[in-house]
Amino acid sequence: MCGTDGPALPAANGGAASRPATRSNPYQPVGDYLSNVGRFQIIESTLREGEQFANAYFDTAIKIKIAKALDEFGVDYIELTSPAASEQSRLDCIEICKLGLKAKILTHVRCDMRDAQLAVETGVDGLDIVIGTSSFLREHSHGKDMVYITKTALEVIEFVKSKGLEVRFSSEDSFRSDLVDLLSLYSAVDKAGVNRVGIADTVGCASPRQVYDLVRTLRGVVSCAIETHFHNDTGCAIANAFCALEAGATHVDTSVLGIGERNGITPLGGLMARMVVTSPEYVESKYKLSMIKEIEDLVAEAVQVNTPFNNPITGFCAFTHKAGIHAKAILNNPSTYEILNPEDFGLTRYVHFASRLTGWNAVKTRVGQLGLTMTDDQVKECTAKIKALADVRPIAIDDADSIIRSFHLSLQNGQNETNAQNGAENAVTA
Amino acid sequence: MCGTDGPALPAANGGAASRPATRSNPYQPVGDYLSNVGRFQIIESTLREGEQFANAYFDTAIKIKIAKALDEFGVDYIELTSPAASEQSRLDCIEICKLGLKAKILTHVRCDMRDAQLAVETGVDGLDIVIGTSSFLREHSHGKDMVYITKTALEVIEFVKSKGLEVRFSSEDSFRSDLVDLLSLYSAVDKAGVNRVGIADTVGCASPRQVYDLVRTLRGVVSCAIETHFHNDTGCAIANAFCALEAGATHVDTSVLGIGERNGITPLGGLMARMVVTSPEYVESKYKLSMIKEIEDLVAEAVQVNTPFNNPITGFCAFTHKAGIHAKAILNNPSTYEILNPEDFGLTRYVHFASRLTGWNAVKTRVGQLGLTMTDDQVKECTAKIKALADVRPIAIDDADSIIRSFHLSLQNGQNETNAQNGAENAVTA
Repeated sequence: MCGTDGPALPAANGGAASRPATRSNPYQPVGDYLSNVGRFQIIESTLREGEQFANAYFDTAIKIKIAKALDEFGVDYIELTSPAASEQSRLDCIEICKLGLKAKILTHVRCDMRDAQLAVETGVDGLDIVIGTSSFLREHSHGKDMVYITKTALEVIEFVKSKGLEVRFSSEDSFRSDLVDLLSLYSAVDKAGVNRVGIADTVGCASPRQVYDLVRTLRGVVSCAIETHFHNDTGCAIANAFCALEAGATHVDTSVLGIGERNGITPLGGLMARMVVTSPEYVESKYKLSMIKEIEDLVAEAVQVNTPFNNPITGFCAFTHKAGIHAKAILNNPSTYEILNPEDFGLTRYVHFASRLTGWNAVKTRVGQLGLTMTDDQVKECTAKIKALADVRPIAIDDADSIIRSFHLSLQNGQNETNAQNGAENAVTA
Repeated sequence: MCGTDGPALPAANGGAASRPATRSNPYQPVGDYLSNVGRFQIIESTLREGEQFANAYFDTAIKIKIAKALDEFGVDYIELTSPAASEQSRLDCIEICKLGLKAKILTHVRCDMRDAQLAVETGVDGLDIVIGTSSFLREHSHGKDMVYITKTALEVIEFVKSKGLEVRFSSEDSFRSDLVDLLSLYSAVDKAGVNRVGIADTVGCASPRQVYDLVRTLRGVVSCAIETHFHNDTGCAIANAFCALEAGATHVDTSVLGIGERNGITPLGGLMARMVVTSPEYVESKYKLSMIKEIEDLVAEAVQVNTPFNNPITGFCAFTHKAGIHAKAILNNPSTYEILNPEDFGLTRYVHFASRLTGWNAVKTRVGQLGLTMTDDQVKECTAKIKALADVRPIAIDDADSIIRSFHLSLQNGQNETNAQNGAENAVTA
């Protein structure tokens, strides 16, 4: 695990003796000494990037509620909107700093001395400083050249450090910036003693191997920690964060449900889904995974959206199994078709059996759940009846249960083994 | 572009003279001869994988509607549920084959001679054959060993080829299968003349660089086309598909909105967002991008879900810009903060100005849209008033417009330049 205070250097992948299970995990590359997938930190930006989401309006009370929940979940940093954005934003910064949370409090400011001065007076633990470095932003946004950017950056960094605070320096739109410009700038701010440099895919254009290459190159240039920020316009924000960690990045920016500008950034819950598969011991020991649903519900309500039906972990169907061959195997051993265990998140699995794609193994389990007994051949016959109705119209669990019960009744009334079945009925569970 | 009929071999990245713009695109690796990002094909599986989504019930009419829409969009293949799943599934296969679509029709069947026999009689163009190869599935699902799997595979492949149909052979849960087993099996079926082998991340555990490595290895072992199928449990389904294409895969399985088992697979729209950034000429010439929203709406209604708020391209906020510095730059040049052009998808951009994060550039544009005139200093003063109200409560466009109009009125009533302003009012638009 990299230190929370100082720069993080690439090192062997976690302590040797302390994490044997991780080292035998097939989803973790063997002996990849650059990788920080087993010791990353989260900079949670729901209260900064998330406030830039179209629907977001956070009053002081909800900001505090979200900050406390994130702190309890275990995020390492909480990033807040710049105090320069509005007077209430400044007051909220001060208020959240007074909460005494375990997480460090950051605020995200333009690379500008006035913004930095306002920020250091709020009581935050550190400043995340940002400036656009792509030709797009240099031409159409702030209009500054690289010499000016470097000079201003060093002044602002010096000032923040003189106040004893952490400082991160990030480019904006890093993946459309000139590589030599970027590396020169990062090398200069690294020498000036920043705690972290930041790589930001501000427009969401980067692809995973491109991210790996840039972070790996940067890892050889700077000795400080590397923070990464990925927008999701092309659907790669979780994967890009993962590849950044593999290449030696130390910190990932997230927001709850990924809310942010446009369609947002790396979502906290989705990143957890990715990381718990790769580094189960680290993630489970550090983050309170059972809180994901409640934190997502809190934020979803605050910004008036529904949790996406297909959200990792908390989408309503994330642990629902439907096709016959899936259901059969899941009933034997959930690991067959589940890489995530719903119980780790305080959630439950559901095996769908009321459809034409069902199989007799799923129906057999349901028969058992209803406290009934049938031979395998009888279950297969009953399954055919369920599939026949489900071929005609969508059916509910009730419909399927009715078919099972009436089929079972017909067996009792018409067949010889009625008495034997009655005796066995209450003994069976599945 | 790889041929639609036969096996696709790795080759130079597209014709040299025909695609100069692609080669100068910074998001495409230079001289990567393995990559098929500029000539992939889509196997659209909404009517197979999508039918395994918890909420899905497709009657014949909606299946035909979806198939026709996907065909018009331009997908290369449409994959249907196995005719062995139910009698209606079989009848629907026959019906869709009769539609005379441009897309080839496939059905997805277990590696089983009875299923294959049923399938070849429906009139489909090809069969996608699948069997689980991981120890998890071999132990807890079908219980077969690799010798049996290989023998059965070769029999079924021989049978399908004898009927003159395309045949794909895929493992299930490929990323948890023994690599030597996998490569031996793929090598055998390749020699037997399959059109495609398939790699499937059935449980959604794979990460992008792992995908790249496996596909790249496989690319050296087989000469046929390589199809890939990625579940989204850990949020990497789009990125994994992209990395598979970079490594030499030729085909990607998708479904509309990603619907499928659990939280689904690579979504068609999200994949388009990724690919149009990388290979704009190829994607725009081949696929009717303006149809994405209507196809997603059709499927969302059929399975009774809402399009996720953060969906790539069609999420309600995918082209909404809010923070002041974003808005300013976007108004100067949309490429600053947009890698996708909303017009390519028949959609529109929205610059949010009614929040405390707004900046005076966004407000200035709104002033112009309202047909009013102010000096920059006046706009800045008006912006402060908007931010002050937005600090107290969420404000709507109407609220912000009211502030602008009443501020403008106060300027007209109280100041000297009233007459000059009136004259200019109708001349201004933005």
